[in-house]
Amino acid sequence: MKLAMIGLGKMGLNLSLNLKDHEVDVVGFDVSEEARMNANRKGMQTEDSLEKLLRVFDKQKVVMLSTPAGEITNTLVKELCEKLNPGDILIDSGNSYFKDSLENYERAKKKEIGFLDCGTSGGMDGARNGACLMIGGDKEIFQQVEGVFEKLGCEKGYLYTGRAGSGHYLKMVHNGIEYGMMQAIGEGFDILQASDFEFDFEEVASIWNHGSVIRSWLMELAEESFVKDPKLDNIKGVVDASGEGKWTIEEALRLNIPVPAIASALFARNTTKIDDSFSAKVVATMRHGFGGHDVSEK
Amino acid sequence: MKLAMIGLGKMGLNLSLNLKDHEVDVVGFDVSEEARMNANRKGMQTEDSLEKLLRVFDKQKVVMLSTPAGEITNTLVKELCEKLNPGDILIDSGNSYFKDSLENYERAKKKEIGFLDCGTSGGMDGARNGACLMIGGDKEIFQQVEGVFEKLGCEKGYLYTGRAGSGHYLKMVHNGIEYGMMQAIGEGFDILQASDFEFDFEEVASIWNHGSVIRSWLMELAEESFVKDPKLDNIKGVVDASGEGKWTIEEALRLNIPVPAIASALFARNTTKIDDSFSAKVVATMRHGFGGHDVSEK
Repeated sequence: MKLAMIGLGKMGLNLSLNLKDHEVDVVGFDVSEEARMNANRKGMQTEDSLEKLLRVFDKQKVVMLSTPAGEITNTLVKELCEKLNPGDILIDSGNSYFKDSLENYERAKKKEIGFLDCGTSGGMDGARNGACLMIGGDKEIFQQVEGVFEKLGCEKGYLYTGRAGSGHYLKMVHNGIEYGMMQAIGEGFDILQASDFEFDFEEVASIWNHGSVIRSWLMELAEESFVKDPKLDNIKGVVDASGEGKWTIEEALRLNIPVPAIASALFARNTTKIDDSFSAKVVATMRHGFGGHDVSEK
Repeated sequence: MKLAMIGLGKMGLNLSLNLKDHEVDVVGFDVSEEARMNANRKGMQTEDSLEKLLRVFDKQKVVMLSTPAGEITNTLVKELCEKLNPGDILIDSGNSYFKDSLENYERAKKKEIGFLDCGTSGGMDGARNGACLMIGGDKEIFQQVEGVFEKLGCEKGYLYTGRAGSGHYLKMVHNGIEYGMMQAIGEGFDILQASDFEFDFEEVASIWNHGSVIRSWLMELAEESFVKDPKLDNIKGVVDASGEGKWTIEEALRLNIPVPAIASALFARNTTKIDDSFSAKVVATMRHGFGGHDVSEK
């Protein structure tokens, strides 16, 4: 079994090494020379252009993308639709927006290229040692490369989710849930650190991971963080968001489904990124206007 | 080792059977004859009054409460403070409000009775086979009965959390987190059921439990539910709340800590209990007023 991996970042490289452990002949490509050299040091064969990468196949090509969602992935798919042949298979294992994946599927289909949208969960550790894979696309195409997912996934770790787009759709909703779960955990520890008691957060996360209702991989990650930095003194309280949470909420708006916890979680992340917020200025100045309450001036 | 269990409901009975499996001589009491008979059928010795229950001890008495939080538990503690002797130990393993536990601790202390507030997580299954226990109170008292918690808890499943009140405080925050996590999971599935794709919820919950970032005991419980009732057709979408979420939010308000996800989760539960909401009437009538939009009439 042979597979070309495009994108050798933290996910793509770990997925490749995982496949190599399972006797898949993986050849990698990344635009970054540093990423290619890093992959070489870990025993991977790489090529320094798409053309050379595709030349390693002598029959049906199977190409997996592990590249940033959006422009980069979509452009690559367009390019690959020119370079691949009918019968070849392209798998997008990144966090693409499901509507992009639907377009990419149609684009590939016109050239008789199989396209699968594969939501990949489990982080870097999952990518390396056994991921959780949600795969959408034509079932017949899925079946041709099911072995790849079987090798990449942990036990019971892959699912054919239905027609094109459904894999990335499910991954999107998974990430929306993840935002809500993480925010709830964060809020709980926020109360604990402000409380009148003296809790040891590492001990708390540990006890919650042993037999409690909220035991979870996320709580295990929190525990590991508290082991390294008991009060998170070395972390800045700013949280990025890479799209899936926003898409989940946009989809909920389209469907008229209320998602207060997930929306709160994204809003809370966004709030962490604002210093000296304009809404706070507006509220402070109105409060001053009607009640003469103090306003902090710069 | 001998222990008296007061309250033989779904938690108290399972905790008792768990202790019995670990060679603890447990004698139970419940005001309900049915509960006592049910316990007898499972091999437990019971007594039909508090007086008889306490007579089973010939030296230091160790009494555990597994009774409904609030009035019932607090009244029992008052009564037991009259009946127990200095040096005896009273453990409240229920979901008491931490401020009640602080008062109960003080009440017991005046009589030189040891009092421990023990938050118990893990549901009925945890109670029976290995719970997660968060125990507050005087350390010296905790140490006298540490063996009880060691037997009741799963591996690494008990923690001395500090001074009186801290056990139930930690359990309260645990439940607040639980509300947020559950709401996020619920919202995710709500989107899936409304989506244009055809997801099998049992398969989805299963794949999310295998290697994903959101794998958790709560997701496992969701999976079990979907196995039994694939679209939850037999469940009414109404969710009760038994206090801990509300207390968590009240505490967050006292500490000026924002808890948008946890608060959203409780509000969402409360919303499920309102048919024909008054706020909806108010909003609908205003919308009619300014824009002539239709109002549904009874």
